[in-house]
Amino acid sequence: MIITFKQTVTPETQHAFQTKFNQLHKQVFIFGLHMAVVGLDHYSFSDQEAEAIDQIIAETPSFVQASRSFHPEDSVIQLPHSEIGTKTFTIMAGPCSVESEDHIRRMAEVARRGGASILRGGAFKPRTSPYSFQGLGEEGLRYLRKAADENGMDVITEVMDETHVPLVAEYTDVMQIGARNMQNFSLLKAVGKTRIPVALKRGMAASIDDLLNASEYIASGGNTNIILIERGIRTFDHQYTRNTFDVAAVPVLQKLTHYPVIVDPSHAVGCWDLVAPAAYAGTAAGASGMIVEIHDHPEKAMSDGPQALKSDTYLTMTKRVAALRQCMATWED
Amino acid sequence: MIITFKQTVTPETQHAFQTKFNQLHKQVFIFGLHMAVVGLDHYSFSDQEAEAIDQIIAETPSFVQASRSFHPEDSVIQLPHSEIGTKTFTIMAGPCSVESEDHIRRMAEVARRGGASILRGGAFKPRTSPYSFQGLGEEGLRYLRKAADENGMDVITEVMDETHVPLVAEYTDVMQIGARNMQNFSLLKAVGKTRIPVALKRGMAASIDDLLNASEYIASGGNTNIILIERGIRTFDHQYTRNTFDVAAVPVLQKLTHYPVIVDPSHAVGCWDLVAPAAYAGTAAGASGMIVEIHDHPEKAMSDGPQALKSDTYLTMTKRVAALRQCMATWED
Amino acid sequence: MIITFKQTVTPETQHAFQTKFNQLHKQVFIFGLHMAVVGLDHYSFSDQEAEAIDQIIAETPSFVQASRSFHPEDSVIQLPHSEIGTKTFTIMAGPCSVESEDHIRRMAEVARRGGASILRGGAFKPRTSPYSFQGLGEEGLRYLRKAADENGMDVITEVMDETHVPLVAEYTDVMQIGARNMQNFSLLKAVGKTRIPVALKRGMAASIDDLLNASEYIASGGNTNIILIERGIRTFDHQYTRNTFDVAAVPVLQKLTHYPVIVDPSHAVGCWDLVAPAAYAGTAAGASGMIVEIHDHPEKAMSDGPQALKSDTYLTMTKRVAALRQCMATWED
Amino acid sequence: MIITFKQTVTPETQHAFQTKFNQLHKQVFIFGLHMAVVGLDHYSFSDQEAEAIDQIIAETPSFVQASRSFHPEDSVIQLPHSEIGTKTFTIMAGPCSVESEDHIRRMAEVARRGGASILRGGAFKPRTSPYSFQGLGEEGLRYLRKAADENGMDVITEVMDETHVPLVAEYTDVMQIGARNMQNFSLLKAVGKTRIPVALKRGMAASIDDLLNASEYIASGGNTNIILIERGIRTFDHQYTRNTFDVAAVPVLQKLTHYPVIVDPSHAVGCWDLVAPAAYAGTAAGASGMIVEIHDHPEKAMSDGPQALKSDTYLTMTKRVAALRQCMATWED
Repeated sequence: MIITFKQTVTPETQHAFQTKFNQLHKQVFIFGLHMAVVGLDHYSFSDQEAEAIDQIIAETPSFVQASRSFHPEDSVIQLPHSEIGTKTFTIMAGPCSVESEDHIRRMAEVARRGGASILRGGAFKPRTSPYSFQGLGEEGLRYLRKAADENGMDVITEVMDETHVPLVAEYTDVMQIGARNMQNFSLLKAVGKTRIPVALKRGMAASIDDLLNASEYIASGGNTNIILIERGIRTFDHQYTRNTFDVAAVPVLQKLTHYPVIVDPSHAVGCWDLVAPAAYAGTAAGASGMIVEIHDHPEKAMSDGPQALKSDTYLTMTKRVAALRQCMATWED
Repeated sequence: MIITFKQTVTPETQHAFQTKFNQLHKQVFIFGLHMAVVGLDHYSFSDQEAEAIDQIIAETPSFVQASRSFHPEDSVIQLPHSEIGTKTFTIMAGPCSVESEDHIRRMAEVARRGGASILRGGAFKPRTSPYSFQGLGEEGLRYLRKAADENGMDVITEVMDETHVPLVAEYTDVMQIGARNMQNFSLLKAVGKTRIPVALKRGMAASIDDLLNASEYIASGGNTNIILIERGIRTFDHQYTRNTFDVAAVPVLQKLTHYPVIVDPSHAVGCWDLVAPAAYAGTAAGASGMIVEIHDHPEKAMSDGPQALKSDTYLTMTKRVAALRQCMATWED
Repeated sequence: MIITFKQTVTPETQHAFQTKFNQLHKQVFIFGLHMAVVGLDHYSFSDQEAEAIDQIIAETPSFVQASRSFHPEDSVIQLPHSEIGTKTFTIMAGPCSVESEDHIRRMAEVARRGGASILRGGAFKPRTSPYSFQGLGEEGLRYLRKAADENGMDVITEVMDETHVPLVAEYTDVMQIGARNMQNFSLLKAVGKTRIPVALKRGMAASIDDLLNASEYIASGGNTNIILIERGIRTFDHQYTRNTFDVAAVPVLQKLTHYPVIVDPSHAVGCWDLVAPAAYAGTAAGASGMIVEIHDHPEKAMSDGPQALKSDTYLTMTKRVAALRQCMATWED
Repeated sequence: MIITFKQTVTPETQHAFQTKFNQLHKQVFIFGLHMAVVGLDHYSFSDQEAEAIDQIIAETPSFVQASRSFHPEDSVIQLPHSEIGTKTFTIMAGPCSVESEDHIRRMAEVARRGGASILRGGAFKPRTSPYSFQGLGEEGLRYLRKAADENGMDVITEVMDETHVPLVAEYTDVMQIGARNMQNFSLLKAVGKTRIPVALKRGMAASIDDLLNASEYIASGGNTNIILIERGIRTFDHQYTRNTFDVAAVPVLQKLTHYPVIVDPSHAVGCWDLVAPAAYAGTAAGASGMIVEIHDHPEKAMSDGPQALKSDTYLTMTKRVAALRQCMATWED
């Protein structure tokens, strides 16, 4: 149930409602005049209580904190050098893996030149095979942070493991949850206890509801600094693209939730020469930003080389994305 | 095998090659200096023959006529009032079904105002249930043609049945093959015997290769006036959208084939308020045009009401699509 | 709406109901005491009318004739040498394509030795590429019929094209509609006008409802001699199997419809050494029969060699299938 | 690379090879006469070395320890009261969640009566929504262990979190990794460090190779006591079944790997009246066992009620499964 109070409600009254529901062993979440009561579909309010209430939505999705019914306005994620969810299109770029101090530094410069305000790079890598390169670990985090700082950028990097959360939190501005861990509920709860923004990637076979329910695991811990990433889903069609880029998920999610939605064209298509058209599509569909992989020598990349963009391609692409966004700037909903 | 002859080759020499391969019971297709020999991977040419040849590609896809190796330049489909496959973005719009003479006329006006040069409307409808409205048949074709003519537009309409091909051909400029008939090989062969342009919709579970092989059924009859339509594929995810719009299929197809590729955002998403973002995505991905459904009273539409755009939404959308295309006009490949 | 009349109802009364609904322009189907009225959810019956009625089911699926609500008992398809839908497990076997008179004769003998009472073989082949072998046409039908007759077997063969229906009907006992034509509605209507049993294969991306709605196209023409075939669906997983064998579709369909359901393990897995386990699975799941491909020299087969069983494997498999069925004979539902 | 040594090889020689490859920084795994060298495709052996070698397989799958090339014989998992991977069909049964001491005890008795030698029950539950019942935790583990012990059964229960591994290990005989955690690589590594058997469920969108690569994360830690579970995959078709039961995955996996493969018909179909036919299908396809959910009052179950079998259905089903296995007992491969 979501209760919307009248503008005139006092904090005391709201608090009284909350106490009452807690006594019924119900979880309560508050956003402005909205109060979500988990697992309660019906309640007989006294006349006095009813007085304070503007509207009641009885049936609410299980991802209640994520829902627009509870939180109608767009959420904006603030970082030292970026904001995500405003009219600004946020670019996150960098290599798939942090490979060396020198390499990530060079990549950071390229990323920044293309307009990226957030540097990406993996230090802990979720690889399909245990015998593949698993990332540089804390050493990688250090290089990544340094390269970002030198370029006035924020950092996004993946955390794969709840025991790593404190370590990764020391170095990053955004913690990324990978597609394979989208329903690793222990990890979601762990990052939900921090207040560090979390970028949650959609799982390969995750429905829209699955993704929003996963976000709710983070939010239920108190961390609503959430960014959702569409990165392609697994379908019957994976001969020419690694995944199927579900570009319509962008407006679908924006209808259902207030969290900013960004796209990951690199993983969605998995092939460098298709990344740019996918990025244009995601931009035009209204995404709040994108995350892309770049590399100076894709053929030598320690992971995901085939989908990495060289500098030239990246810089052309970001220029065009900026042009599209400018074209869209006057559009109103 | 695809043979590319030297610029200096004479028609007689090309003809001699063709005769020779025909004697080996091989089908031969010619496009300019390119000659495709179906089912031949290897051949020992005489020195004299070798003299005429610039390049040989031994392994060719089964969809050889569709392939860029055989036909490197973009194909352009010419219609009285439209051309598809050039820098122009072609809009095909109209109601799902032709419902009445008056209705299609009104819809044609709206379509044209939004910049559409081709009027769509179904007279023979492939409905999931035999008890649903099956279309007005020839009466519908007549109304459709008339409405298009009055507005200086071309016509696209679906042909479901090889026995209907001559009838439909009398009224239409483009014959559409629906997704459910993409591998109705008898129908493909039948339209392949005409020279009327064919718009081939990708099947719900059709891979890219399946689509191109289906196009080859048309081309092998001699009709290479082919337009390919991405209209969404069936995936696990159909709660909020009818299909999954595979926007990356646009650049994938453009890499593989010379036929123009357009998008059908209406069927791809199946829900009117998602059609526009999908259309923007398809435009930005580089499609040569789009086909969309419009209706003045979607709630009363005889088919597919939920995905039909009202005039206002349609006109806003087409204005924005035009703006995106203008923004993209200066981009070079 | 489905009306179930009381046992005491007279034909005249039933007829009066039918006339009445026809006057309302509603299609009416009758099976015993059950009357389906298409597109009618509600009706105010007079007291006298109500007297004749035992039960009314207001909401009915669009595939009303296929439904158990309309036709509770299992349907049985009778052929000269076989019956499908009883306790007997019916085997249909033969080569993918009829290749020559001699070959189909040899294959018929093998098929029969394994217990098959129906000989399969394609004369018109729906091939992905137009340049692949397309079948022997009428010549193939003749050989197929002859081989079946010599072995006391019935014939099943595919019809791809409504114009071929009369020709194919001359030679076959069962007309097969292939997966790619499952929603070729013109073809479905054409076979629906005959009274020859139709084996309808599930499309690669067809939901259970799609399959049943397709069957309704046949039934609405008056032909309810329908057999449904589960032959694998297209999923993300096609590295080791051609399709995903949806074995649970067997009991799902049996719950919803009275038509017999058989399995096609050959197409479901597409790889000869997996056909037998899939056949055992389909048998144990309760299918009424199976259709399998056999070939004496799979490596030389003109189509689908990789999934064809050699005689030995086929004979071992059918022996085991018979043992499983015997084990299951005492099970009651 | 997999090296198969001659029967006459000495341990010293094998050790010398291992040392040599370790010096090249290659991981080496040994099984009997087979030695897998990870990431090495080619090596020039001296004549003396070549003398000891029977056969070299240069290209090996990334899941080398799982592969039949490395480990040709079937693996058998030994538990106090069960063995998995022999001719015996192993049944694991119990409620979805441990709900109370009394309840799990009653369920254990039912499970055992049906021939189950392993008791299942969740104490830590991976629920889609954070607001759903999350399991009784350690209390649940205690009840589960006790109920199993009283009935002379082994225990299988899910571990969701690497920090829980030591706790769960105290109480269980088999640690289950759920479908959502199939690529939670930290968790896989954690259970790989124990020697407790691990039952790894296939992820919803996991290919066969993904599943085997996930198993390799466990094996690379030294724990090769692995059981694989097919539990249905996510496809376009989920109207009548929760997932699509990929029954052919059983023989596919058995071809590729030596680990025992069992089926989970409960999650595969998600609907109690379809569980039995799915179980029969899995049995007939050759699975080494199954895991099923039972409940005395499914409508009151704290999780997954709709797919739980009541005692009667369960006991009938297990009797029939036993009959099928007996029928299959004489079959040789």
